[in-house]
Amino acid sequence: MITGYRTHNNGELRMAHIGTEVSLVGWVQNSNDLGGMNFVNIRDRYGITQLAFNMDANASLCEASRKLGREFVIQAKGKVAERSSKNKKNPTGDIEIIVSELNILKEAKLPPFTIEDDTDGGEELRMQYRFLDLRRNPLKNNLLLRHQMGLETRKYLSDQSFIEVETPYLIKSTPEGARDFVVPSRMNPGEFYALPQSPQTFKQLLMVSGYDRYFQIVKCFRDEDLRADRQPEFTQIDCEMAFVEQEDIIMTFEGLIKHLFKSVMNVDFDGDFPRIDYAEAMARYGSDKPDIRFGMEFNNLNALTQNKGFQVFDNAEIVIGIVAKGCANYSRKQLDALTEWVKRPQIGAQGLVYVKANEDGTYKSSVDKFYSEDDLKEWANQTGAVAGDLILVLSGALEKTRKQMGELRIHMANELELRDPKVIKPLWVMDFPLLEFDEESGRYHAMHHPFTSPKKEDFDKLDSDPGNVRANAYDLAINGVEVGGGSIRIHDSAIQSRMFDLLGFTKEEAQAQFGFLMNAFEYGAPPHGGIAFGFDRLCSLFGGQDSIRDFIAFPKNNRGRDMMIDAPATIDTAQLKELSLDVKIVAETK
Amino acid sequence: MITGYRTHNNGELRMAHIGTEVSLVGWVQNSNDLGGMNFVNIRDRYGITQLAFNMDANASLCEASRKLGREFVIQAKGKVAERSSKNKKNPTGDIEIIVSELNILKEAKLPPFTIEDDTDGGEELRMQYRFLDLRRNPLKNNLLLRHQMGLETRKYLSDQSFIEVETPYLIKSTPEGARDFVVPSRMNPGEFYALPQSPQTFKQLLMVSGYDRYFQIVKCFRDEDLRADRQPEFTQIDCEMAFVEQEDIIMTFEGLIKHLFKSVMNVDFDGDFPRIDYAEAMARYGSDKPDIRFGMEFNNLNALTQNKGFQVFDNAEIVIGIVAKGCANYSRKQLDALTEWVKRPQIGAQGLVYVKANEDGTYKSSVDKFYSEDDLKEWANQTGAVAGDLILVLSGALEKTRKQMGELRIHMANELELRDPKVIKPLWVMDFPLLEFDEESGRYHAMHHPFTSPKKEDFDKLDSDPGNVRANAYDLAINGVEVGGGSIRIHDSAIQSRMFDLLGFTKEEAQAQFGFLMNAFEYGAPPHGGIAFGFDRLCSLFGGQDSIRDFIAFPKNNRGRDMMIDAPATIDTAQLKELSLDVKIVAETK
Repeated sequence: MITGYRTHNNGELRMAHIGTEVSLVGWVQNSNDLGGMNFVNIRDRYGITQLAFNMDANASLCEASRKLGREFVIQAKGKVAERSSKNKKNPTGDIEIIVSELNILKEAKLPPFTIEDDTDGGEELRMQYRFLDLRRNPLKNNLLLRHQMGLETRKYLSDQSFIEVETPYLIKSTPEGARDFVVPSRMNPGEFYALPQSPQTFKQLLMVSGYDRYFQIVKCFRDEDLRADRQPEFTQIDCEMAFVEQEDIIMTFEGLIKHLFKSVMNVDFDGDFPRIDYAEAMARYGSDKPDIRFGMEFNNLNALTQNKGFQVFDNAEIVIGIVAKGCANYSRKQLDALTEWVKRPQIGAQGLVYVKANEDGTYKSSVDKFYSEDDLKEWANQTGAVAGDLILVLSGALEKTRKQMGELRIHMANELELRDPKVIKPLWVMDFPLLEFDEESGRYHAMHHPFTSPKKEDFDKLDSDPGNVRANAYDLAINGVEVGGGSIRIHDSAIQSRMFDLLGFTKEEAQAQFGFLMNAFEYGAPPHGGIAFGFDRLCSLFGGQDSIRDFIAFPKNNRGRDMMIDAPATIDTAQLKELSLDVKIVAETK
Repeated sequence: MITGYRTHNNGELRMAHIGTEVSLVGWVQNSNDLGGMNFVNIRDRYGITQLAFNMDANASLCEASRKLGREFVIQAKGKVAERSSKNKKNPTGDIEIIVSELNILKEAKLPPFTIEDDTDGGEELRMQYRFLDLRRNPLKNNLLLRHQMGLETRKYLSDQSFIEVETPYLIKSTPEGARDFVVPSRMNPGEFYALPQSPQTFKQLLMVSGYDRYFQIVKCFRDEDLRADRQPEFTQIDCEMAFVEQEDIIMTFEGLIKHLFKSVMNVDFDGDFPRIDYAEAMARYGSDKPDIRFGMEFNNLNALTQNKGFQVFDNAEIVIGIVAKGCANYSRKQLDALTEWVKRPQIGAQGLVYVKANEDGTYKSSVDKFYSEDDLKEWANQTGAVAGDLILVLSGALEKTRKQMGELRIHMANELELRDPKVIKPLWVMDFPLLEFDEESGRYHAMHHPFTSPKKEDFDKLDSDPGNVRANAYDLAINGVEVGGGSIRIHDSAIQSRMFDLLGFTKEEAQAQFGFLMNAFEYGAPPHGGIAFGFDRLCSLFGGQDSIRDFIAFPKNNRGRDMMIDAPATIDTAQLKELSLDVKIVAETK
């Protein structure tokens, strides 16, 4: 890469280059002044190279190099030489540059935090100076990873005859789903565009148009109250296929994920990804995105624990036990902490029962009043606990208890370091329920969206037992993280009609909200389905990190603000007037 | 490509497949009922295949096939057979399918226009039913071309060490430049995000961050009064490089354009693209994006035409002549039409002078009163007109006349069919002026943007002759269409300061409007520059069409409306209230 300012980058010079005249450019990483010599490390995107200045050889140049501050932008010309003391940690560590010309391209203020892999800057300061934080290797590597992931996704899908189609960003607001960001239209006073929450409608239309295999890596927008690690704008790998059944979609996109792991991480998988039904996932792991890098599966203890006089269990719909291997030695304090943990409002359990399977073969539990050692031994047999293990038991209503135990399972795995970041365990979760009952409105809601197809074999339950109808809907979970999900869509008008009935829509309401897409279907919709992957999440998973924020170049904080450019901000009244808008802030009386 | 519904697509079956049992899916294109036989053409994204139904072989199936309407979605299973009468125009025209099973996957209403290469549907109707218009080959081929252009751009730039970085869509409104679309922030009442007009600030920040070679294929937004063929949302190939000079950028992106022509169109170029200075382009073609597929260059006729008593020319700053080859036989009516054409307000000329170089060696002009045959002969010598040619002359103020003549030149080339769509002529237009004088505000404006670098050799004119300072700014024009443009940016604070002075900004104003980026530069900005290509325009150019609209899947009309989904639209008062907004439409009194 030869450009006007440099002959090489700072990551490429090796022993083979010794004697070569070079010109390097970059930022001053640091200096090491030894009196007779001054060494300056110069950094660019590609690496770090050592520049050497010698008082004997060129005193004025050496003095000039002493005046270089951290992060100055410089150009150094000179000859590549072998280093006397090599740095094996740096790919360019065998050589240095005997500098003959030094140009300061731009002086630099001292950054408010150090540009090092481990910086001394706090979260807020680094967000404010994001353009400096992005100089650090960890963030740079994240963005390089993201670039590679995007490119490999595009290459792979294009090779599979998918075409990327850009769908519009200025669309129409829909009352269903999450809250839209809206955009006032100056030319149509009083009217608004909406930013897409996903290109769902457009990708289904492209199937009606015959495009067959569509994808797009696309920004989506949701005006939600932000939780930690949620962004108001996020990126999806959005995909749709026509003339396919569920199996086609699963296998096609399993291929994509395998390709990404292979091409980006050099990770191979043996055979197909495992699959689990939603119902089974909830029963065994209490989660629709189970982390299967470790066991600690649920054991139903109803038969062994009920009708022994312990009312809490007797009144429970379900009693679930899990085994924490080797934790029989947990102290009172540790057990109390666990109990407090499950009782936090975020988890919401009433309490926690434990059984210690002691090394000496005895059992000790928090419910010894109700259960004999023989009883507890049976629990151990049932759960597979052996001497030294700890059994943790939660009880209560079925769904709630499963979810609580699912959280506890992950918590214990974190404590026991069972979630090995080097192990990758994908899992397809299949056959999600079509509907979920909403207590508040007293009616069913679509779990995915109202166009999700019920499974054929469950058609007869649509009237008799709607809550147990399964959908052709699937998620891909990796290491306990939901990275993607999708469904086969309904393309049959009769089934769509029954679906709207179930959801409590009148014909008129259905027409008002979904009429446009339904009408389009009347002109010849093929059977179709799709999937969407959370691209930010997928990148953070590949990068081995929990937070998505550092895989986004310029993220917003938890209050939806860009701290760097200080957005959002007020706008001119003239601008508001042009948009036919008045700001009207109503003070809340609390 | 084997999926649940099909074994082959409708574009792939050949003689080699004869005897194969296949399953095809697609839309019914049309039928041809011969009584004893019925033929149905089935269409998908990949092609069209003929299905054959025989009354003798299977009367009920043949009858069923007669009931298929246009655009029904069907599945047909059967055996591939050789056709008795082959269709050489269709790649599958050698074979047909002897159908043994026919399934209607979805009936279809009759589309409001025909799904043919040349449709009977009007513009408005096709926009409203865009999902049906997209079924037609011309649009499908445009979107496939666009996909390929995007993919090849990404591959090429990635191979050149560029990384694609996604910049945010919810940013901050800036008063400079075109009007922003804004997005009210619910969580920050009274505050607004803006949608980016381009990622300019962010790509410059990425250079400060050390990313070196950035690109992004990205949507941009401008709330302008729409002209024909302008879209409120459009796509750019946005690029920036650090540690480069103008030549590096030109050669890098000339490489990209050559790669696109080679990989997408199989077009090769001999050597480098030609270059022309802005000043020369204006003098020779009256355009900053000249179409050089044909000559018809400007000739300065001042010396030959002035001081002969014709006041119009005498008072003109410039008299320009062009030669329309072989047009000496233009009729009175044709010449009047040309005169009317240049006098339209869009062109704004006062009149048009012509000279016919007749086949018999005589000359005839519209200004014979003032000029002798000898005079006119000199005009012919000067312009290179020979017997049979027509000289067209415009005069007036320098800039205006050049622009008018530039338009007339293109108009004549269109009339004479000199703009051969099979010929591709790229041209770099270099050294744009740094500033343009705005009569209205009585001050200079940045022609590109305030960070564009003046040319070193013109630094001394910054004070003495600012209007003639040239910038390191360049455009790429292809066949008279501007497809991209960019500049080297200022990274020196002193020059930036002088630039703001020139533009009439006080220190405080400059700080308020551009302070954020200038401050970022203080932390070590490398020399950098970039370019952006209009992706929609580039695709339409490759597709050989003038309009960008049919290279966008779901475009908006000239009033910024999406006719298909009917956006923008009103939103709920509840939604407005959440956003702390009131709609306040002021009736205009005209």
